[in-house]
Amino acid sequence: MPVINKIAKEIKPSATLSLKEEVNSLEEQYGFKIIDLTVGQPDVGPTEDVLEALLEGGKFSRYGPVQGDPELREILSGVINEEIGVRYSPQDITITVGVKSGLDILMRVLLEPGESVGIMKPFWVTYPELVRLAYGIPCFLESDENLRPDLVRLEEEVEDENIKVLLYSSPSNPSGIVYTEDELKGIAKIVKEKDMWVISDEIYGRFVFDGRKHRSILPIEDMRSNTILLDGPSKRFGVPGWRLGYVAGPGEVIKALTKLQGHINSGVSRPAQYAMRVAYTSEKAREANDRMRQRYERNRDIFVKGLNEVDGISCVKPEGAFYAFPSIEKLFGYKYEFSGGEYEIKTSVDFRNFLLRKAQVAGVEGAPFGMDGHIRFSLATEEENIVSALNNIKSAVEELCL
Amino acid sequence: MPVINKIAKEIKPSATLSLKEEVNSLEEQYGFKIIDLTVGQPDVGPTEDVLEALLEGGKFSRYGPVQGDPELREILSGVINEEIGVRYSPQDITITVGVKSGLDILMRVLLEPGESVGIMKPFWVTYPELVRLAYGIPCFLESDENLRPDLVRLEEEVEDENIKVLLYSSPSNPSGIVYTEDELKGIAKIVKEKDMWVISDEIYGRFVFDGRKHRSILPIEDMRSNTILLDGPSKRFGVPGWRLGYVAGPGEVIKALTKLQGHINSGVSRPAQYAMRVAYTSEKAREANDRMRQRYERNRDIFVKGLNEVDGISCVKPEGAFYAFPSIEKLFGYKYEFSGGEYEIKTSVDFRNFLLRKAQVAGVEGAPFGMDGHIRFSLATEEENIVSALNNIKSAVEELCL
Repeated sequence: MPVINKIAKEIKPSATLSLKEEVNSLEEQYGFKIIDLTVGQPDVGPTEDVLEALLEGGKFSRYGPVQGDPELREILSGVINEEIGVRYSPQDITITVGVKSGLDILMRVLLEPGESVGIMKPFWVTYPELVRLAYGIPCFLESDENLRPDLVRLEEEVEDENIKVLLYSSPSNPSGIVYTEDELKGIAKIVKEKDMWVISDEIYGRFVFDGRKHRSILPIEDMRSNTILLDGPSKRFGVPGWRLGYVAGPGEVIKALTKLQGHINSGVSRPAQYAMRVAYTSEKAREANDRMRQRYERNRDIFVKGLNEVDGISCVKPEGAFYAFPSIEKLFGYKYEFSGGEYEIKTSVDFRNFLLRKAQVAGVEGAPFGMDGHIRFSLATEEENIVSALNNIKSAVEELCL
Repeated sequence: MPVINKIAKEIKPSATLSLKEEVNSLEEQYGFKIIDLTVGQPDVGPTEDVLEALLEGGKFSRYGPVQGDPELREILSGVINEEIGVRYSPQDITITVGVKSGLDILMRVLLEPGESVGIMKPFWVTYPELVRLAYGIPCFLESDENLRPDLVRLEEEVEDENIKVLLYSSPSNPSGIVYTEDELKGIAKIVKEKDMWVISDEIYGRFVFDGRKHRSILPIEDMRSNTILLDGPSKRFGVPGWRLGYVAGPGEVIKALTKLQGHINSGVSRPAQYAMRVAYTSEKAREANDRMRQRYERNRDIFVKGLNEVDGISCVKPEGAFYAFPSIEKLFGYKYEFSGGEYEIKTSVDFRNFLLRKAQVAGVEGAPFGMDGHIRFSLATEEENIVSALNNIKSAVEELCL
C-alpha cells in the first residue's frame, strides 16, 4: 500500500483516548467506579427552547451560505459588542465547525510552510497539532511560576524564533488563568512592534469567577487589525456535540477563511446554526449559563482549597474556565504498589495512572498541555463528585508519601 | 498587517459565487426572471420522518465519538455491502463533514507536499483546490471525445507525472458519465501496477439511469486495499445543508483520517448524524429517492434530446447524476448585442453570460470543471423549468447564428 503522510502518522490522538482505554480496563478488571474529572465540556445540555429549535432548523436542508446563517452572524455581532466591547460587521464573522475547524482553516490562511506560531504554555492540546498540520512550526512560550504570561521572555522568544502568530486561550484551558488588562497590554505592545497576528481563543469567556468581567485583547488600541477572535456556543450553552464555533477578524482574513471553508467543508450543519439563533437570544439559556458558572466557581473553591492542603500538590487558583491544573512535580520519584506490581511516578502519565489506580479519580496528564509536572482536572460536574475526588486524592497521596 | 498564505490568496471561490452576482444584477437591473439550472443539489428536502429525528438527535449535545455515531456506521456498513457488494467493518468507516471535509482530510493523510494527484477530466471544481491546499500537485487527465476515461493516455500520464493518487467521481459531476465495468477494470489495472491510491467519489451512486445498476471499482479483485470510497446522504436524501458524508477504506488510512479529524473538527454535528440513522433505514426516504431519480431521468431525456437539436451544441447523454455537460465550443467566435453593447463569445464564462442575458437561463461555465468548451446544467428541477429553459436556449442560439 502506498505510504501515508509523515505528519499524519506522527500526530498524537487526543490525550483523552488512551486515558479512556485505561479507565475502561480498570473498571472492567477491578470493578472500580472511577470519578471522571477529564471532560472538557459542561455537565448540562441545552435548554428546551434551544433543543426544540433544531426541528424548525431542519427545514434548512439545502446548501446555505458558506460563511454561515446571516441572521446568526447579525446576532453574534451584537453579542461580541456587548461582551467585549468591539463592533464587528456580520461580514467579518464566519461560523465554523467548532473552534477547531476555525483554527485549522485559519492556520492554513495565515501560515506559509515553515513559519512559526508562538503558543503560550500551558496550552490546549490541539493547538500544536493544527500548526503542524498546516506545515507550521509550533514554538512553546514559557509562563511564569504562577502559570501567567512572562512578558520579558515572550519578547525575547518572539524575536529569537521569528514568530508570526501568537496563540493563547484566556480564560485558559487548562490553567484557568484569566489575563489581566496589564498582561493583555503587554502582549499587545509586543504584537504591534513585530506586526504579528494574535489569535485570541475566548471560548471560556462566559466562565470568569469572583465577579470579574471577561477581558479581551481586542479593545486595546489598534489591536483589531492584528487580532483574530475565536469563540462559540459549545461551552456556554452545553452543545459541543452540535459542532459550532465562529471566527471574527479583519476583512481580508475572514474573506480568505470563508473562501477556503467553501472548499474544505461548506460550513456548519444548518439545523444547529438555526438553533443557535435561539440560544444566543434566549433568557433561559443565559440563566442556565449563569447557574453553570456559579456551580463551577463553587466547585473550584472546594477543590483548589482542598488540593492545596495535600502535601506535594500545589494549585494556582483558577480565575475562570472550569479546570484546575495543579503542579504534582514534587510527587515524582515516589513509588507505590498496585495489584502485585511496584510503580514509580516519573511523569504526568504515571501520576495520572497512580490516581486512577489508587484514588479512582481520572484527570488528564499535563504533558500534552505542555507541562509534564501538572495534571488537569475538570470541575464541570456535581459538587459531590468534587468532594469525593478530593478525599480520594488526599488519602492516596498521603499513603504514597508515608 | 502580516501577509497571508499564497495558496489561500490564489484559490478560486466556488464558481457559482460570481454567477450569483451576475444573476442578481440582471434580475434587479432588467427585471429578468432567470431559470436556475446551476444547483448541485436535489430540488426536494428530506422526508418527514427524517426531519423529525433531528429533535431526538438534539439530545446528543455532548462530544461524541470522533469517528461518528457507531450505530450509523453499522447501518452504513450494510448499505455499502448492499449497494456495491463490499463489506466494510464499522471501524473502517468515518463520518465526515460532507464529502468535502472527508476529501480534505484524506488529502492531508495521503500526500506529502509536492506529490501528484491525477484528476480525471471533467471534474468537480473542489478537487484541485483541496489538492493544492494539502500542498499537492493536481494533474488533469484528459478524457476521450465522449467524456469517457482514456485508458491509454491515463497509463502514460500516470507514469509521466508520477501520480500517487487517482481521483474521480462516477456517476460523474459534471458529465453524468457512469464508468463501465471494463473502464473500471482498466483503471484498476493501472492503479495496481503503479501501487497508487484511488479515491472513488460515489456520491451520485443512487442516480443511475436506464435501469442500470451503480458500479464501483471496489469489488474488482484486490482493489479494496488501494481504494478509498467517498459517499454520503446529501444528494440521495436531499440534505446537503446538514453537512454529512463518509469515507470508507483500508484500516490504516481510516485510522489516520480519524486521528486528524479529532484535531481538525471533532466530527459531524450529532443531531444530523442521528437523523441519518433514520434516513438510511426509512422506506419513505428510499421511495423519495426513487421518485427523484425517475424525475431527473425524464428531465434528462427531454433536455439532452432538445439540446442536441440545437445547431452548435452537442451533448453526451448522461447515464447518471443530475447534470448535462454539453459542448458549446462551436459557438465560440459568435457575437451578440445586449443593452447597447456588443459581446463576443470566447470562453465558457462568455457563453454563460450570453445565456443569462439572452435566454434567461443560468448554467455554470465549464472552465472550473476543467473543460472551457462546455457548460453545466443541473436537471434537479421541475420538468416545466427544463422545457422552458430548452426553448429559451434554442431561440437565443438560433438568433446568435443568424
